[in-house]
Amino acid sequence: MTALVAPFDSDLQQAYGPSACLCPCRNETLTLVLSQDRTIDLYELERLLESVGWSRRPLRRVRRALEHSVMVVGLWRHDPRMPRLIGFARCTGDGVIEATIWDVAIHPSYQGAGLGRALMDYVLAELRRREVERVSLFADPGVVDFYARQGWDLEPLQRRCAFWYAT
Amino acid sequence: MTALVAPFDSDLQQAYGPSACLCPCRNETLTLVLSQDRTIDLYELERLLESVGWSRRPLRRVRRALEHSVMVVGLWRHDPRMPRLIGFARCTGDGVIEATIWDVAIHPSYQGAGLGRALMDYVLAELRRREVERVSLFADPGVVDFYARQGWDLEPLQRRCAFWYAT
Repeated sequence: MTALVAPFDSDLQQAYGPSACLCPCRNETLTLVLSQDRTIDLYELERLLESVGWSRRPLRRVRRALEHSVMVVGLWRHDPRMPRLIGFARCTGDGVIEATIWDVAIHPSYQGAGLGRALMDYVLAELRRREVERVSLFADPGVVDFYARQGWDLEPLQRRCAFWYAT
Repeated sequence: MTALVAPFDSDLQQAYGPSACLCPCRNETLTLVLSQDRTIDLYELERLLESVGWSRRPLRRVRRALEHSVMVVGLWRHDPRMPRLIGFARCTGDGVIEATIWDVAIHPSYQGAGLGRALMDYVLAELRRREVERVSLFADPGVVDFYARQGWDLEPLQRRCAFWYAT
């Protein structure tokens, strides 16, 4: 991925912040940008997450969850007036030893073009920069191969994931 | 579990803080206390984690990880002068939607007495109080049954856990 360097991309840098970088894309007519700085519209995020089949959650809870995440990344289809959020991921964690990735989503219209891989590369590069030791996630059956191909260890040491739901 | 109520247990409350409660124990000669408030000595924590077979980590990183955890719980064997840390658990998360439990440990000398169960009950009660929707953890093979007996869902919807390690 290419960092945005002023003065060539000063407009993009201004729109997406210092953490922004261009996201590689096979379609050269598109400008796609990854950023942790650009504010995410919660309604747009909910539409994105619904587009990949996830259920709606109360916006005030989503807002608080994002505020307390250690990293929030948007993938934007650039448009000078109205950038569109087409990808998303966030992490919780202690900032040092453990990070856990949640809500990885690429809008269905943009899937199959390597953007999920680019998004994960961006997230892992940032966690590596912060010197986080270990990153974890919970993979739905349909994306297990996606993570395995990227070198993730599935259930190392026969660890199993367990969930408890508030009722 | 019994909340500590002044004036009966004012000494305990003072030593362990407002979050403290007595931990049930079959051996009535012991007073065991769960608390989020009492400061954890990092050397004592490392000894506890080593006693259950976990590798040593740099203390400055452990300190930062604890500071950035959303919950840190100690299980103490009470002694008026020198309480001993015999159990531990911590959570990361966004405080609203997701919490992940790490480093659940009971000192081997105190295992088999229901203390792990009591520790987990305390953690889940606190997360429920905070209205966290979902709690996750990664269970080593030896403790999968422990969590299954407590009603945790193992790999719901065939989710699998994946790990990435910084190199």
